[in-house]
Amino acid sequence: MIKRKDERGLEDLRKFKIEIDILKYPNGSALINMGDTRVLCTAMVEEKVPPFLKNTNQGWISAEYSLLPGSTYPRTIRDIDKGRIEGRSQEIQRLIGRALRGCVDLTALQGTTIWIDTDVLQADGGTRTAAINGGFVSMYIALAKLYRNGKLPYFPVKNFIGAVSVGILNNEILLDLDFNEDFDAQVDMNVVMNENKKIIEIQGTAEKKDFNVEELFKMVKIGWKGIGSIIDYEKELLKNIVYSY
Amino acid sequence: MIKRKDERGLEDLRKFKIEIDILKYPNGSALINMGDTRVLCTAMVEEKVPPFLKNTNQGWISAEYSLLPGSTYPRTIRDIDKGRIEGRSQEIQRLIGRALRGCVDLTALQGTTIWIDTDVLQADGGTRTAAINGGFVSMYIALAKLYRNGKLPYFPVKNFIGAVSVGILNNEILLDLDFNEDFDAQVDMNVVMNENKKIIEIQGTAEKKDFNVEELFKMVKIGWKGIGSIIDYEKELLKNIVYSY
Amino acid sequence: MIKRKDERGLEDLRKFKIEIDILKYPNGSALINMGDTRVLCTAMVEEKVPPFLKNTNQGWISAEYSLLPGSTYPRTIRDIDKGRIEGRSQEIQRLIGRALRGCVDLTALQGTTIWIDTDVLQADGGTRTAAINGGFVSMYIALAKLYRNGKLPYFPVKNFIGAVSVGILNNEILLDLDFNEDFDAQVDMNVVMNENKKIIEIQGTAEKKDFNVEELFKMVKIGWKGIGSIIDYEKELLKNIVYSY
Amino acid sequence: MIKRKDERGLEDLRKFKIEIDILKYPNGSALINMGDTRVLCTAMVEEKVPPFLKNTNQGWISAEYSLLPGSTYPRTIRDIDKGRIEGRSQEIQRLIGRALRGCVDLTALQGTTIWIDTDVLQADGGTRTAAINGGFVSMYIALAKLYRNGKLPYFPVKNFIGAVSVGILNNEILLDLDFNEDFDAQVDMNVVMNENKKIIEIQGTAEKKDFNVEELFKMVKIGWKGIGSIIDYEKELLKNIVYSY
Amino acid sequence: MIKRKDERGLEDLRKFKIEIDILKYPNGSALINMGDTRVLCTAMVEEKVPPFLKNTNQGWISAEYSLLPGSTYPRTIRDIDKGRIEGRSQEIQRLIGRALRGCVDLTALQGTTIWIDTDVLQADGGTRTAAINGGFVSMYIALAKLYRNGKLPYFPVKNFIGAVSVGILNNEILLDLDFNEDFDAQVDMNVVMNENKKIIEIQGTAEKKDFNVEELFKMVKIGWKGIGSIIDYEKELLKNIVYSY
Amino acid sequence: MIKRKDERGLEDLRKFKIEIDILKYPNGSALINMGDTRVLCTAMVEEKVPPFLKNTNQGWISAEYSLLPGSTYPRTIRDIDKGRIEGRSQEIQRLIGRALRGCVDLTALQGTTIWIDTDVLQADGGTRTAAINGGFVSMYIALAKLYRNGKLPYFPVKNFIGAVSVGILNNEILLDLDFNEDFDAQVDMNVVMNENKKIIEIQGTAEKKDFNVEELFKMVKIGWKGIGSIIDYEKELLKNIVYSY
Repeated sequence: MIKRKDERGLEDLRKFKIEIDILKYPNGSALINMGDTRVLCTAMVEEKVPPFLKNTNQGWISAEYSLLPGSTYPRTIRDIDKGRIEGRSQEIQRLIGRALRGCVDLTALQGTTIWIDTDVLQADGGTRTAAINGGFVSMYIALAKLYRNGKLPYFPVKNFIGAVSVGILNNEILLDLDFNEDFDAQVDMNVVMNENKKIIEIQGTAEKKDFNVEELFKMVKIGWKGIGSIIDYEKELLKNIVYSY
Repeated sequence: MIKRKDERGLEDLRKFKIEIDILKYPNGSALINMGDTRVLCTAMVEEKVPPFLKNTNQGWISAEYSLLPGSTYPRTIRDIDKGRIEGRSQEIQRLIGRALRGCVDLTALQGTTIWIDTDVLQADGGTRTAAINGGFVSMYIALAKLYRNGKLPYFPVKNFIGAVSVGILNNEILLDLDFNEDFDAQVDMNVVMNENKKIIEIQGTAEKKDFNVEELFKMVKIGWKGIGSIIDYEKELLKNIVYSY
Repeated sequence: MIKRKDERGLEDLRKFKIEIDILKYPNGSALINMGDTRVLCTAMVEEKVPPFLKNTNQGWISAEYSLLPGSTYPRTIRDIDKGRIEGRSQEIQRLIGRALRGCVDLTALQGTTIWIDTDVLQADGGTRTAAINGGFVSMYIALAKLYRNGKLPYFPVKNFIGAVSVGILNNEILLDLDFNEDFDAQVDMNVVMNENKKIIEIQGTAEKKDFNVEELFKMVKIGWKGIGSIIDYEKELLKNIVYSY
Repeated sequence: MIKRKDERGLEDLRKFKIEIDILKYPNGSALINMGDTRVLCTAMVEEKVPPFLKNTNQGWISAEYSLLPGSTYPRTIRDIDKGRIEGRSQEIQRLIGRALRGCVDLTALQGTTIWIDTDVLQADGGTRTAAINGGFVSMYIALAKLYRNGKLPYFPVKNFIGAVSVGILNNEILLDLDFNEDFDAQVDMNVVMNENKKIIEIQGTAEKKDFNVEELFKMVKIGWKGIGSIIDYEKELLKNIVYSY
Repeated sequence: MIKRKDERGLEDLRKFKIEIDILKYPNGSALINMGDTRVLCTAMVEEKVPPFLKNTNQGWISAEYSLLPGSTYPRTIRDIDKGRIEGRSQEIQRLIGRALRGCVDLTALQGTTIWIDTDVLQADGGTRTAAINGGFVSMYIALAKLYRNGKLPYFPVKNFIGAVSVGILNNEILLDLDFNEDFDAQVDMNVVMNENKKIIEIQGTAEKKDFNVEELFKMVKIGWKGIGSIIDYEKELLKNIVYSY
Repeated sequence: MIKRKDERGLEDLRKFKIEIDILKYPNGSALINMGDTRVLCTAMVEEKVPPFLKNTNQGWISAEYSLLPGSTYPRTIRDIDKGRIEGRSQEIQRLIGRALRGCVDLTALQGTTIWIDTDVLQADGGTRTAAINGGFVSMYIALAKLYRNGKLPYFPVKNFIGAVSVGILNNEILLDLDFNEDFDAQVDMNVVMNENKKIIEIQGTAEKKDFNVEELFKMVKIGWKGIGSIIDYEKELLKNIVYSY
């Protein structure tokens, strides 16, 4: 059986922690640590919507994802120095945006965009799911403030969500892979679910081995174990925030 | 119950057809029609690998996806006129590349890149899965020629693959959505599977409604119905091609 | 004397064919084959004019030209992957735009831009003249529809136009060069003329040999032979389209 | 009959002057004035050829053309601030490059590129033909120096060339149009010819009126009158320069 | 007299703190807080030099500076989304690079580049001087490790350096301006000095009022008071690090 | 003691000359020669302000700086061909803009931007200070014309300014360094001062040797000697221009 770092069980999350309200300008901010993965997440409000929403009754949530140069080894070259956003970052920030829009009633945000920035300070696997969790927390705080300040007709977050990676390594299913595990994984999956155990987004890739529906089923089940814990943590962290901030 | 265009049943594919060897320069070419969706796919060989594969024993398969301006209404502005590849195209071409690499033994391709270009002539839903199917066929032909010309130590395609979209619309599961169905869908999923009924890639998004594991399970099952037919068609189309081209 | 492929005479066109109305979203569409050169042309209407025409009584016709990756050997890298439109494509699309504007009364189009997209599926010489011919046909159809729908005060096409290449190879004048002939040509010329045998655009280059006015004269004369046939074909293809579509 | 500025006859050139050797770093330099049009031209040698000439026995001549911001009214925005070279500049610099390569034996330049930069200080019509004339002179000087320094096996300029614009305005043919004439012209043509009265490049456009072969013929004849004078001037300016510099 | 936040005297620094070794991949890392300004600084080694140093006996130190989107109000748009590095960032990163190269013997680094990344997490004035201080500390650590690992012939840091801003506000000279002070300042100056009280870099701008040499003199003197304290702090922080790391 | 070219003393300027009104489209133009450094400067008026000044009572002065390809040896590649403005150019054009805004009352320019373009024709050291001097002169002329035409409520230039470089070479202080001196300089400083002997901008860099406050003081003093002469020249050149143009 696979031995994981720090005596971690196959279906255990890494130690995680989310610090909030750490920056003074954003409407909401969160620094998430999942193991050695660290992502700084901010939510900022802009009184404007993208062109395709002009003249609709909807607001928008837009996510951006980026690796700081020192977050990886070897150093990541900045997008601007390559002249383009990496395809991988594009794919990830689209996933984050969809996941966050999937738990919010956008009609409450009419005329407003919430910018979610997720900047990876240190990358050790699972940066996209960490970004979703941290992004959700920063967004929740920003929306709570807007709501408490009378800027929203009702509090628009429909559900708590959580995200986690699951993978198959040496034919065993693992929860929350770190970089080395991810690198060797046969199957790599990311799952976003809400507090009702419903799927918001699922993406699975046969990196080295195809997989069947039963394995898919098991991976989702194990994913939920992690997501459930994360949602519990988020609820504790954000409790009463809508009313008492 | 939902009425689909052309009396189509909920679990029926649209009419589809793949024409092959339609262009004279590419090593392989295919024009796929899935309903009104039409994608021109070509496979071209380059004796070179991307930098991250230098000094490894592996080749590479690289996919690009683009919408021609006249493929949509209103007209799609070219990437070069906007100065960047749309995030959506990035995400799609990464999916196509992963799917195709997922059925090929890349070590047989050492030193070689196969470029798969998928250009959408007409978009009516399901362009990414059509591009995977057409891309697979053009790649298969190109690899068969390489193999027959003694350029490959063995024929590297491990399995036939097929791809299809599945979605939930008005709480019913539909196979192979056209543009209007896709636009209204509550859940949107794309599945790539191989001839052994194994999953190569799965991506599901709760566009308007979260979904549970049972629905996920059913969608994969219905997806397989479509994929099975597509793989049968591909096998008939490409039969003997490895040996008799 | 030069021997041409398929027993073609020096002053003969290659076999050509234009298929129309092949795509469902564009206002007009045409797929032109001149020998092995194949160009997909679409015309789409936008209710907007470029900034320099704001507050004038004129509309505009704007052309774009691009090679699909699989249209050449070796593969053409996409503009967006190089970060710029090739100078050659810029030059060609400006030529196409000027030629098409040269046969239309732009005041009838006030407030409207017709986008002509010409995408080369297969390049075997003469792509720019094929694009003009196919672009003309797709534009003619689009304008006929606009006119029949009461969107234009009068039908604005003043003349039929046709375009062809002429060149000097081994000191002989050839009509409609294919890629290999073009590659070796001493002089390369492109001529656009209208049904009244008037010149709309002429561009001649001494690739390997300078030429005198008599040769210029002869080349235009031979060019007209080809253009005349093309215009006859277009007239047959589009007859009654203005009134009976 | 048309009245031209400064009592100029229809077939007269504007006053022109070429100053040479005005900059210290370029191998050759020339400042050309054609009427109020002023173009600074430099020729610089690089011991390198473009990739497509690697492993051939040929050198290259590459031209660039740009408008300085203050050369026009209103101000021209720099290419870099728009993020792309204007299509018009691309087309012009390709014309300049072809014209200059059309009078030089490129095999004498094996391994070497001559960069011709033509920067318009003041634009009053005819900038592209002025750039060809000034570019030719700066190139001639640079090649003469290379030859005299023993860097070339023989002097590679085959002929003197000259360039001029001709146009039709109010149905009359005019030589060397200034900006206002060019703006109103019905037909706009640029001709490059060599000292043997042969055509190197010809480009004619029916801006507002189509034209027939006889008019084409006359325009070339009138163009030669201007080009002949320009070549005489160049010969006087550069006489003995190959041997006595 | 001006009242500063937190009872700060005119010639007092804000509270500052530098945390080191906070990230696991960079060779050196530092998080600097100067008041509410927070900059994350990393130093990473690359075994390569820029082209202009090929075949010299020198290494290089290259700095990059960027504002995270959430570091300002309103949100800073990412460089990549604007398609260019802001001129302000360019100017700042060139200053940082010059300052750091000004205290290092680059010949000890032959063949090596040290990348200094300074990413502003929170901007409240003085980000460029904070980036120099934090960048110096991260670089010092990286070089100490290289030296201790035998990768350098000798320890190449010649002096400790420090940087601070000084300005004139309401005709009084202030040390270490925060954002609001900076916004209103009449004169804005940044000084970089080394432990020998020598100037490495000085940049002063008359934002609203010109200044004379005496004022320049006084500003440098007051700047030194701050720089001296910073250098003392750095020395304490990094003491023995060269030998005992 | 250092021997300078042309017997120049350590504290002597190179020969300099400014020609004005040399181009017909710009509102003001100047060609400045400082020794062999030659910069073409133009000032053009636009009835528009940058977005950050919308709804304020201020106008703007915006400077651009660029090296023509033939201004250096080896040839400078154009920004557009590299796809970005060089950091050095960015830094310089920001300096020029600040210097020019530092001597003008921007409220007189409400709603207007003055574009100052400084294009280096020949670079032999001191291009940025030459650009400031030439830019000032062209701006002064443009503003004088605006004022005389009743477009400005009062003449907005508050002071004459001049700019010069000073450096330390072999431990001696030199005024107005040429390229070779600058290349070897230990300290490089640029100073902009106004007619009242006040500093507008100062930038000093320890290229090879740190320097103390006394040296800074001396460099400013010597800089003023040069700046004083330049301002005298400008005053003579522009005398009465505000009233008699």
